[in-house]
Amino acid sequence: MKNYITENKERFLEELMDMLRIPSVSADPKFKDDVLRTADYVKQKLEAAGADKVELCQTAGYPIVYGEKMVDPALPTVLVYGHYDVQPADPYELWNSPPFEPVIKNDKIYARGACDDKGQMYMHVKAFEAMMQHNALPCNVKFMIEGEEEVGSSNLGTFVKNNFDKLKADVILISDTGMLGNDTPSITSGLRGMSYVEVEVTGPNRDLHSGSYGGAVANPINILCQMIASMHDENNHITIPGFYDNVEELSEEERHEMARAPFDLEKYKQSLALTDVHGEKGYSTRERISIRPTLDVNGIWGGYTGDGAKTVIASKAYAKISMRLVPNQTSEEITEKFTKHFKSIAPASVQVVVKPHHGGEPVVTPTNSVAYQAAARAYEEAFGIKPVPVRSGGSIPIVAMFKQVLGIDSVLMGFGLDSDAIHSPNESFGIFNFLKGIETIPLFYKYYAEMSKGE
Amino acid sequence: MKNYITENKERFLEELMDMLRIPSVSADPKFKDDVLRTADYVKQKLEAAGADKVELCQTAGYPIVYGEKMVDPALPTVLVYGHYDVQPADPYELWNSPPFEPVIKNDKIYARGACDDKGQMYMHVKAFEAMMQHNALPCNVKFMIEGEEEVGSSNLGTFVKNNFDKLKADVILISDTGMLGNDTPSITSGLRGMSYVEVEVTGPNRDLHSGSYGGAVANPINILCQMIASMHDENNHITIPGFYDNVEELSEEERHEMARAPFDLEKYKQSLALTDVHGEKGYSTRERISIRPTLDVNGIWGGYTGDGAKTVIASKAYAKISMRLVPNQTSEEITEKFTKHFKSIAPASVQVVVKPHHGGEPVVTPTNSVAYQAAARAYEEAFGIKPVPVRSGGSIPIVAMFKQVLGIDSVLMGFGLDSDAIHSPNESFGIFNFLKGIETIPLFYKYYAEMSKGE
Repeated sequence: MKNYITENKERFLEELMDMLRIPSVSADPKFKDDVLRTADYVKQKLEAAGADKVELCQTAGYPIVYGEKMVDPALPTVLVYGHYDVQPADPYELWNSPPFEPVIKNDKIYARGACDDKGQMYMHVKAFEAMMQHNALPCNVKFMIEGEEEVGSSNLGTFVKNNFDKLKADVILISDTGMLGNDTPSITSGLRGMSYVEVEVTGPNRDLHSGSYGGAVANPINILCQMIASMHDENNHITIPGFYDNVEELSEEERHEMARAPFDLEKYKQSLALTDVHGEKGYSTRERISIRPTLDVNGIWGGYTGDGAKTVIASKAYAKISMRLVPNQTSEEITEKFTKHFKSIAPASVQVVVKPHHGGEPVVTPTNSVAYQAAARAYEEAFGIKPVPVRSGGSIPIVAMFKQVLGIDSVLMGFGLDSDAIHSPNESFGIFNFLKGIETIPLFYKYYAEMSKGE
Repeated sequence: MKNYITENKERFLEELMDMLRIPSVSADPKFKDDVLRTADYVKQKLEAAGADKVELCQTAGYPIVYGEKMVDPALPTVLVYGHYDVQPADPYELWNSPPFEPVIKNDKIYARGACDDKGQMYMHVKAFEAMMQHNALPCNVKFMIEGEEEVGSSNLGTFVKNNFDKLKADVILISDTGMLGNDTPSITSGLRGMSYVEVEVTGPNRDLHSGSYGGAVANPINILCQMIASMHDENNHITIPGFYDNVEELSEEERHEMARAPFDLEKYKQSLALTDVHGEKGYSTRERISIRPTLDVNGIWGGYTGDGAKTVIASKAYAKISMRLVPNQTSEEITEKFTKHFKSIAPASVQVVVKPHHGGEPVVTPTNSVAYQAAARAYEEAFGIKPVPVRSGGSIPIVAMFKQVLGIDSVLMGFGLDSDAIHSPNESFGIFNFLKGIETIPLFYKYYAEMSKGE
């Protein structure tokens, strides 16, 4: 299999780069045609790789690409999930090369979506092709590649409910997470959940001159700042009543085990040009981004933001706020608690509106499951090193949804790195990682089939 | 004089509206030609009204329009100051009619600059024309109309220093303030000063994924909110060390005198659709906007502010912050105290840059001066009611500069109203106010000449 990958490396990279050239930004309607073109591209490539029954399944939004190869009903079935849409790329001026004109530099592909998720998703298509070319597909496989992950996968739940039989499988395989490092492979054993809200604070019914009115009326921007500031206490503990009610506290042993994963705090700070990290008292950096819930303002705006000075008291101020959740918080519970609290702390002099966005549940993949152990063996063989289980800070809301609706667990085999800067300008994906993924995935299929026989 | 005004009313309004049609936005370089065109317009109109030596005086920025009529060296000389530039008009979508297409509705002219300052400045040109037509100019008059007031008048100080002799006068007359109401005329007897800064808070050296990093690093937006929130204590008292050191505390009698000016708190709140006012404990609404210093965030931005959700921790967050000052604070002192304090409260995990903008000093016009008393008599005759002295919340930084450089006091004869909504969308100026100003100004000249003889 490794030879096949080496021989076809240039073609694999060209195909991926062709896909990266299409700006499939699901968050922005002006890219609609590009998103649809990308769905077509994935369909064609799945067909070329040998999948059957490849189709674009229509939804109320962007289509879901489905394909399958049923080898033998006695074999386990792997359902591969990925997404062909990408994050917006702005601010464009911070990119060293245009986000939709992929370039290879220092053995990395730079483009929006290089890692999240086109690069990682395409590893599965090429791994499938490689197994097919060697007539060595150890499991049945189904592909479910959607186009709305970056905007909340709002139509995926319906698709999954309506296609329960079609999507029957033993495990869901997803590559949309990362590893600790190329020398320190790891498998994501948990994901945080998410609540996302947009808040609007209104003071006076129009913008006011800050000389005539400054000091007499509540300034919505100042008030919004105060409300946001009150979300954390001096220990960076979130102050929303009941926020931590259902948070699973890990035992000392579990925290000790987690701490064994390699982590260089100095390098971490240096890579971000930070003098210091900053987070909840009583927890390490790794713990703060994995087993603890958080609150972050993702965007804030109000008043005059153009060049120069304008002395205005804005009528309105806005913020986008998200909270990462851990087991056993639920996004509905947390969104409700946030909303209730945020409205309650608003002074009488302003009006507050809280608009909830899509959320997602936290989830944990037990390390003693067949799927996790098959993945661990695959990584160990491909990398020559045992992978470490790591609870990720990120969210993939649909993982909990798959469990709930289809009753299927997911295994998260990621090959991305922190330095890939997903969601940021100058996103990249290492060629090493892309090819290593294509090598590792068939090993998962092999071990999963072997170990499932035992069951 | 009143007949002349009535007979020429339509022409006066047309000329003003022609000037309002030119978008002389000094803050935005794309309007450069329009600003220059407006300067030309003012020059032409001054010439048509009968002024001599009318010229566009070049500066490092936009030109200053100068003109004069020297009648008799024995008479006092009035120097009229105004500005032909206007505030930016965005957000355009909040205007009921386009900001640079003036319309008359309910006896008011709606346009950006209708009141601030084109309407009020043009009253002086038409008052001058009226006095010239009647061969009844009681004082010498000089005009100094600049084009950069809304961006800090940064070249005016140099112009004034370099033209000390040319600008020699006994009083400076300015109409760029307001009155309490059409039935309750008032004269501005004091102005607040201003410090204006722009702050930038930087956390990590790039935007980060808020799942991978949320909880581990300082979020510059959250931090900025905390720093801004800390600027006021629970009594809305500003917490910058030394901020109130030089603030003049008014005596009980003075505060009592101020409180006699008519003010309807319920109507005030209703006009702004506010449930409540909000300000420094221990002071009334009127006091909060006149004799107390304040801090307001005029603009804030950072992170993702487009449609939908983006889960990012922004690398940077920004705010524009201004402080209104009262005697005897100085803008240099306050800007320095703000900067020192703001940097000192930043946690180690972020970098803070504070960029000062133009400032201005607070100033008071004594009510027992000849100029103030002449103005008071003029208002009383024109309105039939004695005007009340009012300390304004706004700033006209150059008033203190004129005193310092030219040694000349200013008298602030304003005819605008709060409801004119200067600096906001749907700015307006009442036709009553425009014409009443043209009627009142010649009365000022008359009484000023009369009362100066006594000196």
